Amino acid sequence: MLEELKKQVYEANMELPKRNLVTYTWGNVSGIDRKLGYFVIKPSGVDYEALTPGDMVVMDLEGNRIEGKYKPSSDTSTHLYLYRMFQEIGGVVHTHSPYATSFAQAGRGIPCYGTTHADYFYGEIPCTRSLTDEEIKDDYEKNTGVVIVEAFKDKNPLYTPGVLCVNHGPFTWGKDAHEAVHNSVVMEEVAKMALRTELLNKNVVMAPANIQDKHFFRKHGENAYYGQN
Amino acid sequence: MLEELKKQVYEANMELPKRNLVTYTWGNVSGIDRKLGYFVIKPSGVDYEALTPGDMVVMDLEGNRIEGKYKPSSDTSTHLYLYRMFQEIGGVVHTHSPYATSFAQAGRGIPCYGTTHADYFYGEIPCTRSLTDEEIKDDYEKNTGVVIVEAFKDKNPLYTPGVLCVNHGPFTWGKDAHEAVHNSVVMEEVAKMALRTELLNKNVVMAPANIQDKHFFRKHGENAYYGQN
Amino acid sequence: MLEELKKQVYEANMELPKRNLVTYTWGNVSGIDRKLGYFVIKPSGVDYEALTPGDMVVMDLEGNRIEGKYKPSSDTSTHLYLYRMFQEIGGVVHTHSPYATSFAQAGRGIPCYGTTHADYFYGEIPCTRSLTDEEIKDDYEKNTGVVIVEAFKDKNPLYTPGVLCVNHGPFTWGKDAHEAVHNSVVMEEVAKMALRTELLNKNVVMAPANIQDKHFFRKHGENAYYGQN
Amino acid sequence: MLEELKKQVYEANMELPKRNLVTYTWGNVSGIDRKLGYFVIKPSGVDYEALTPGDMVVMDLEGNRIEGKYKPSSDTSTHLYLYRMFQEIGGVVHTHSPYATSFAQAGRGIPCYGTTHADYFYGEIPCTRSLTDEEIKDDYEKNTGVVIVEAFKDKNPLYTPGVLCVNHGPFTWGKDAHEAVHNSVVMEEVAKMALRTELLNKNVVMAPANIQDKHFFRKHGENAYYGQN
Repeated sequence: MLEELKKQVYEANMELPKRNLVTYTWGNVSGIDRKLGYFVIKPSGVDYEALTPGDMVVMDLEGNRIEGKYKPSSDTSTHLYLYRMFQEIGGVVHTHSPYATSFAQAGRGIPCYGTTHADYFYGEIPCTRSLTDEEIKDDYEKNTGVVIVEAFKDKNPLYTPGVLCVNHGPFTWGKDAHEAVHNSVVMEEVAKMALRTELLNKNVVMAPANIQDKHFFRKHGENAYYGQN
Repeated sequence: MLEELKKQVYEANMELPKRNLVTYTWGNVSGIDRKLGYFVIKPSGVDYEALTPGDMVVMDLEGNRIEGKYKPSSDTSTHLYLYRMFQEIGGVVHTHSPYATSFAQAGRGIPCYGTTHADYFYGEIPCTRSLTDEEIKDDYEKNTGVVIVEAFKDKNPLYTPGVLCVNHGPFTWGKDAHEAVHNSVVMEEVAKMALRTELLNKNVVMAPANIQDKHFFRKHGENAYYGQN
Repeated sequence: MLEELKKQVYEANMELPKRNLVTYTWGNVSGIDRKLGYFVIKPSGVDYEALTPGDMVVMDLEGNRIEGKYKPSSDTSTHLYLYRMFQEIGGVVHTHSPYATSFAQAGRGIPCYGTTHADYFYGEIPCTRSLTDEEIKDDYEKNTGVVIVEAFKDKNPLYTPGVLCVNHGPFTWGKDAHEAVHNSVVMEEVAKMALRTELLNKNVVMAPANIQDKHFFRKHGENAYYGQN
Repeated sequence: MLEELKKQVYEANMELPKRNLVTYTWGNVSGIDRKLGYFVIKPSGVDYEALTPGDMVVMDLEGNRIEGKYKPSSDTSTHLYLYRMFQEIGGVVHTHSPYATSFAQAGRGIPCYGTTHADYFYGEIPCTRSLTDEEIKDDYEKNTGVVIVEAFKDKNPLYTPGVLCVNHGPFTWGKDAHEAVHNSVVMEEVAKMALRTELLNKNVVMAPANIQDKHFFRKHGENAYYGQN
């Protein structure tokens, strides 16, 4: 079942090592079929070199494995929670990409210092709070989703399609698995440039709001004019 | 029309991903035929892997599309303005190359710390001022050109063939598209080394004027002796 | 003899340049057959491009060369000492991988700032003390092993499978040569992110113990649930 | 003439882009035949992709071109001066490799922080003084050699086979062109790690003399025991 989606999710997973976002198996991508209410995700701890589209695991939104010979990614409950709470997203990615992860380890969101960031993420990319002992013991992976959603209380997850989980690493999302990976690539580039920006100017502040708005809305929304149509 | 120029501009565009100056579609190159008064530029938001010489867009200096099935780069008005104001340049490049962009985000020009810089750029590579609300609303891309030209009020754009647009990224130029890309590669290397130079010596100052002059003029002008004739 | 082990150790050695952990010949991997009490190690100063499985040197735990046309790695006595003192390890790696070596040169262990680290190394990766004049003159390579073991007085080498030798570089180990190399790759990634984490937050502290425990024990020990059984 | 030496020098030049030490034509290698008193050097400003062994230029130690259709490297007089003053060297390399050049731009030698450095360079890699106006106007490239030799007044150039020219970049040498390139690769690695070491520990000091001596002399001189004989 869902052979086309499995292929898409497989290809999106394979983008991660190709784009230097993962070492070994440190990443996973999923994509959802909203009509069926099933999502497809990478199996846990399987090498990218060995992966095939048929290895993808099909899950329902209750956390039941519908199809697949492997156990799904250990982060499956986080993906599931994001699909439940962010109704408009179609794909989710988790990596330990090195620059974004460094921000997460530093306990900081990524400030918007320029148009590269503003072209894709509206405002700061937030960093979650730490989980409590109870949240960790209880259902760690689901609660990772809970603190992510908390960080978006006042933010539109479609306008800022990614987050840093403190002491852990980034999650991104998008309208499908492919766009979610695209946003992971962008977040890593943006994190890299933000660190270097701070090294070059200790007193740097966020880019002016007018330039952030200009760039975000020339690519997004009804007045967008970047690209073809 | 302009098939030879399209091929040159296409090849110059393809240098950008090959030289690691762009992620996805974050860059564009143009080249001009000064006799005809037409320039050729990359289409907006088209993947480098899919690009062909025939996809290049031909524009006149009034901003009319003369030929091409695609919309030109969203930065076309900036290129156009530079061709109008810097009469001797033949090619223009814009990228978000990570080190140069970090200087732009830090709101700083790139100081000349050594001969690598002095071989290609005479003195500091300047950083523009921010655009005003009006300039952004009015005609953002053209006004990006306006603030670039402003930054060259007291500088020779042929001696310093590049600039940083604050909170945005670099533009470079040259006698043709190929040389403009060459200058983008050099600016990125120079930016990378300038950041590390500052990390190694917080009190570093610009390279002495005599060594800057020596290196610039052994490669440029009538007394140049670098290379084969 | 030990043709299968030689092949494994050869392949593990070849992983080092492939994973960008070594320049020239700056690294070596060994693996042990605990039943025979023999270990197999890379020959000294032989280029990776020229290496073959048959070039591997077989040693006993008294330091006698049992088989092999080449002299073993100059670091053989360190490997030997680790095999003697850490009875459960099956492979040892030494490299000068650039980020881990920078920590060693800074005289610092690598603090655990996040889950990437906690997934593989329990707590800080320690840094040894300097050797004394006598230890250097006497039997430098064996005494390098002595200070490593000293650094694990209160640590479980299976839980923290690596160390930094001060002013020198990293050693890692594992259940076999392949896993030891895996741990070298991880240590380098973790070192890279730890440096950047500190640049982003001068007051950063270690990741909370609860998240370190969670990640380490979801991958290790009897309650592990990461991967496929 | 000197076809074998031309081939060696050509191959050594081609190592530079392969090892990521040069951008465009920013580097040159030479090698000398001490019996004939002729050296062979890369032509000026010729792309590495287009280079052939037959393009190498043969020079005598008076600076006369003995053979070759091209002008020799613009840095030829520096190579020549080093061959004259350092009688035991057989090859010279100049690059703008980014980390070593950053030290040169910072006006600093590279301190010996660990065994990677000590394995190849005895003590600090020195940085020259600036040239005077007269030295620049007079014979810039020869005087670059003069300040290099000055920096070795109290140092053995065979023990410390490289230098940083302030505000410019590194020169290295060795018993032949190949070894000189090897030393350029090592200097770049050592520079990279030295910068990161300082970022990790602001109060770091040089590695202890005993460990520096141990590593240098286990690879060099009559008691060396690294490698195969």
